[in-house]
Amino acid sequence: MSAVAAVLKHIDEHLQASVDRLFELIRIPSVGTDPRFDAHCRKAASWTAKELETLGFSTSLHETTGQPVVIGKYSPEGTSPHTPHILFYGHYDVQPADPVDLWHSPPFEPEIRRGKDGKPQIFGRGACDDKGQFMTFIGACKAWLCVHGKLPFRLTVLIEGDEEGDTSHLDRFLVDNKGEVAADVAFICDTEMWEDKTPSINTFLRGCVADEVVITGPRIDLHSGYYGGPAVNPIKVLSRILASIHDKNGKVTIPGFYDGMEPIPAGTRKEWAKLKFNHKQFLGDVGLGIPAGEMGFTALEQIWARPTAEVNGILGGYSGAGVKTVIPAKAMAKLTFRLVSGQNPIKVRNAFRKFVRSQLPADCNVSFVTQGGASSGVSVSTDSPYVKAARSALAAEWGKPPVMSGSGGSIPVVESFKRHLKMDSLLVGFGRETDSVHSPNEKYDLESFHKGMRSWARIIAELNG
Amino acid sequence: MSAVAAVLKHIDEHLQASVDRLFELIRIPSVGTDPRFDAHCRKAASWTAKELETLGFSTSLHETTGQPVVIGKYSPEGTSPHTPHILFYGHYDVQPADPVDLWHSPPFEPEIRRGKDGKPQIFGRGACDDKGQFMTFIGACKAWLCVHGKLPFRLTVLIEGDEEGDTSHLDRFLVDNKGEVAADVAFICDTEMWEDKTPSINTFLRGCVADEVVITGPRIDLHSGYYGGPAVNPIKVLSRILASIHDKNGKVTIPGFYDGMEPIPAGTRKEWAKLKFNHKQFLGDVGLGIPAGEMGFTALEQIWARPTAEVNGILGGYSGAGVKTVIPAKAMAKLTFRLVSGQNPIKVRNAFRKFVRSQLPADCNVSFVTQGGASSGVSVSTDSPYVKAARSALAAEWGKPPVMSGSGGSIPVVESFKRHLKMDSLLVGFGRETDSVHSPNEKYDLESFHKGMRSWARIIAELNG
Repeated sequence: MSAVAAVLKHIDEHLQASVDRLFELIRIPSVGTDPRFDAHCRKAASWTAKELETLGFSTSLHETTGQPVVIGKYSPEGTSPHTPHILFYGHYDVQPADPVDLWHSPPFEPEIRRGKDGKPQIFGRGACDDKGQFMTFIGACKAWLCVHGKLPFRLTVLIEGDEEGDTSHLDRFLVDNKGEVAADVAFICDTEMWEDKTPSINTFLRGCVADEVVITGPRIDLHSGYYGGPAVNPIKVLSRILASIHDKNGKVTIPGFYDGMEPIPAGTRKEWAKLKFNHKQFLGDVGLGIPAGEMGFTALEQIWARPTAEVNGILGGYSGAGVKTVIPAKAMAKLTFRLVSGQNPIKVRNAFRKFVRSQLPADCNVSFVTQGGASSGVSVSTDSPYVKAARSALAAEWGKPPVMSGSGGSIPVVESFKRHLKMDSLLVGFGRETDSVHSPNEKYDLESFHKGMRSWARIIAELNG
Repeated sequence: MSAVAAVLKHIDEHLQASVDRLFELIRIPSVGTDPRFDAHCRKAASWTAKELETLGFSTSLHETTGQPVVIGKYSPEGTSPHTPHILFYGHYDVQPADPVDLWHSPPFEPEIRRGKDGKPQIFGRGACDDKGQFMTFIGACKAWLCVHGKLPFRLTVLIEGDEEGDTSHLDRFLVDNKGEVAADVAFICDTEMWEDKTPSINTFLRGCVADEVVITGPRIDLHSGYYGGPAVNPIKVLSRILASIHDKNGKVTIPGFYDGMEPIPAGTRKEWAKLKFNHKQFLGDVGLGIPAGEMGFTALEQIWARPTAEVNGILGGYSGAGVKTVIPAKAMAKLTFRLVSGQNPIKVRNAFRKFVRSQLPADCNVSFVTQGGASSGVSVSTDSPYVKAARSALAAEWGKPPVMSGSGGSIPVVESFKRHLKMDSLLVGFGRETDSVHSPNEKYDLESFHKGMRSWARIIAELNG
């Protein structure tokens, strides 16, 4: 039996135990962005550290300006300066579970149910993003260590708790702890496969910058009869501003928004066109049908390589039961801008603020609440032994070569690794489009979890030479 | 001592007892529009019935499709078919108190504090609208009965609990109980004075129709990275629609909105211009300065005689702490349209719905939740013995003749009385602009309460002939 075959067998035979450990972790409601869940985040961090200790890693919990960071360190015997050093990155924090009433099972009580295709799926907040995903790598290391006693590289595991919220916490941590974290390359498991049976390696990632805008008008909520007419209405003002962010072709109208952006290379557009991305099915799965974004780009290009301005939330006035005839004193909206390589997130946020101020009527005031971190979009180099190892390993596990894809989502840490540590990232993930990450009824296919562990075992084997 | 002088003396000497009774009523949190307060509404109704019984009225509590209606009946000895029959109308329900944290004293624990002008004011939700106001009439009757033993007219008192919410409940009650309610004229105390020392009789009233619009897009909240671009965003769609309701001159753009409206008579515009309404001070009091409504009309005309479309509330996506990077599945807004004489409220609502549907992108759906009642604007006839009696009485009490004014607020019952019972209304109220009705820190000047009772006593005296 080859070195890898024994490990794959071990993974197959111990799948239930791996699932059990993942369930333990999902049961901890580690919503990083909401202070009410802080204690749970700490618990998830401790759980992760303990899990790494069972692999024989030396672990530490680091306080940050946000949630604690877990570091696990491993050096095989006989380590030399030439032994490759890999950083594995994941996050234990999860998105808020609301609206909870739309879940078919409680978000923090994981269970396996069969999906529409009859295949078993793990349901729970974080089942995919990112608990299920990062546990595939940990599971593969565990199996490898059980079978062979040592890994063929030095390894630093970094699992953080602010990925879904204010990513500036980890960014700061990385700057302050470069020596603790620096490695030759980062492995990250937080992305999707190209399709059900086709793995992918992500080479394009969008960045993200968030903002919250609060428009105030009258100093108190007013009677809409006594004041309706002459009194300015902050909801109307906010609506007007939000409506003006896009022109009728879906282009963002904020002056300077597109500054610094590189156009999508013609070759890349061609390659992506060959993928025959089925946007009807992609949108159909979530109840939509017609690409609503920037005209002149395919849906895939819109997601992978074009920036967006989205309103994530809006609130103003009375939204309870019945009627309240008020002109509200204020209205607010939360926005995120997805960015591509070349755009400067801070400049984009400032351009948005200037754009809002330029449209403000004399009787209104505006304030902005800086939210979360700010990350640029990145393109990941495909020309490295790690990418080559992953291509070969994924092809062996899934029976076809991986697609070199993009992702519309942001993994700001990829940008931080590049910026602060000059480190490239290898992005391999086993999520599926249907996983409802950030939505009710998040799931992770048992197959994703199982073959995810097997894929990492094969990548380790490739690195074993 | 004249008949009225003795009553005025009685009112002066028993002011504290009158305040105590009003405080009892304010302490009952009778928020009619929110089902969680239903029991309190019933309690307020019972309290009112008991109060009327102390005046020797025969009372009854009537179930309706909404909150119960209190009816009190009084006939002086020796009543003939020629004895005038007055209906007095008020409402015991109050607006929701939120945002409660902006109140300086708990909304349902009334207290008297000195205002900026050093004058004592009664603070509490409903202190003015309408508990304090309707209790001025009850207090005057009570004093008159104590002093003279009988009133110079037949009286039906109707105090309801759905004025701030779904006014269709009372409307239905009036249709079903015409015999119980019909009288020669309705007296209503739910309006404001012209200014601090100048009383008014309201002759223009705006109507009101409400609607709630819910825009849905994706069937679930989506990850704004994975879907941002091609997925339609219901908040953006809603914002665009709300922004399009007004043109740049503040005119409502909904086709058919202004149908049936009569222009403000030139004479009325002239009279109102003479009032030298200080819109800077009016808006300045609530932190504003510049009339934001329909161009080509004075602020006073905008409020008294021009219709409006206001967004009272908006909600969509994530509005909690931190960042949630979603494209929400839905967004909703609550609107009210203030209407003037001639506009048909149902046609206006239908026109709004058609307008929304006409702007809906293919991938969105819309639903509407019918809210509250629908009332037309009305003009009240000034040519009646009751208006004449009130002019003379108010002039005597306040030392100057009342202004024949308008009101931007809606009192749908005035329209219902006219429509179902062919009954005109006499609108005399003692509220002040600064009362913050519908806002935190609602108050009623002790002077309004005191001189309000004295004013009604003088009106009763005028009717005594």
